[in-house]
Amino acid sequence: MASKEQRVRLLGTLGSTFAYRVQLALTLKGIEYEYVKEDLKNKSPLLLEANPVKKKVPVLIHGEKPICESVVILEYIEEIWPENPILPKDPYERARARFWAKFIDEKIVSACWTAYSTQGVQQAKALEEAQVALKALEGGIEGKFFSGENIGFLDIVANFIGWWMGALGEAANIKYYDAEKTPLIHSWIQEFRNVEVVKESLPSRDWLVAFFKGHREALLATAISS
Amino acid sequence: MASKEQRVRLLGTLGSTFAYRVQLALTLKGIEYEYVKEDLKNKSPLLLEANPVKKKVPVLIHGEKPICESVVILEYIEEIWPENPILPKDPYERARARFWAKFIDEKIVSACWTAYSTQGVQQAKALEEAQVALKALEGGIEGKFFSGENIGFLDIVANFIGWWMGALGEAANIKYYDAEKTPLIHSWIQEFRNVEVVKESLPSRDWLVAFFKGHREALLATAISS
Repeated sequence: MASKEQRVRLLGTLGSTFAYRVQLALTLKGIEYEYVKEDLKNKSPLLLEANPVKKKVPVLIHGEKPICESVVILEYIEEIWPENPILPKDPYERARARFWAKFIDEKIVSACWTAYSTQGVQQAKALEEAQVALKALEGGIEGKFFSGENIGFLDIVANFIGWWMGALGEAANIKYYDAEKTPLIHSWIQEFRNVEVVKESLPSRDWLVAFFKGHREALLATAISS
Repeated sequence: MASKEQRVRLLGTLGSTFAYRVQLALTLKGIEYEYVKEDLKNKSPLLLEANPVKKKVPVLIHGEKPICESVVILEYIEEIWPENPILPKDPYERARARFWAKFIDEKIVSACWTAYSTQGVQQAKALEEAQVALKALEGGIEGKFFSGENIGFLDIVANFIGWWMGALGEAANIKYYDAEKTPLIHSWIQEFRNVEVVKESLPSRDWLVAFFKGHREALLATAISS
């Protein structure tokens, strides 16, 4: 069995919204950990060994045991360190949070990513999908944050919307959402950015925009030449 | 709070591998429920109201509360009715099960579905992806079943591989896997089909093949005409 006292390492990169989920959960829980910065262009033997199937960050290594997939890691963290819970207590509310977390990954992150990495008609279609999905997600907001007055599991998962989405949009010169059409998303974004531990830990906007600008140019060049 | 004694309804269809996940979990737990058969060509007001975001089966309605997304429903069932557990007890083993469940949906179901609904080069590429993913999934098998000697969460999720995949393959006249290349998957399929409650509850192979043949013809006709 895993014990709370074992060494905790997080393999991540500054540009990863998924690694940031784990970072934020660990910080909110007050768990000490070592951040192992990965270079995705030259993945470390540790990453390849810890996540041989997907070879992606984040990976949480607890003792010697690697846990992969950001949402799976969040559930693991909640089970090992139940203090300062991030998931609601009620099973139905937990199910709602998990439903919307899946929705964010399947419908929002993926449409925003497609819009960012394409042009023309394909981009316009993905943008439309992202906006429809963001509107639907407003149904998941139940207070100041997704599950009420405190930041939790779904807010952590939604960090993409709270920070990354804006940087991706700026890098690709597109607008993912309209504050007037999705006012609840808009105010959630402001609330999210105002949380002290979030403010202190987010990568700088300038750095993120520059990172994604470079990344997008490389992506489009590959798409054109292939 | 939800109580165990409330009415349990499952909105599903015979052809859905996702609805079958919930059906199997409820049966393994010995939970009484009403099966509400949906016609996906003419969705009921109950389904549209219970799952307004995705409008898909399965939906579990517990009392008056709807829970959507098959894997989310499985977690909910485990939390409400912890007797006859389907998830492993150890948090690390639970994380492993959740990781592979996500992998099955993202890599195997989706590649098999693409291969089934396309032709030519696109089909060949998806088939190759499905085979690579099935090989990787062998790393998730830890005994007779995925998590040891008893059928559990991951076996339930993998029912697609245990039954649906063969029917889809026959309907599309393609072979998704090679018993010699993925012997562990092959023996898992046999074990899965031999479980008494599985044997008693699977839809008939002939019905499933006929269903998917018709469905595939309609899909290809749409693809050609669009």
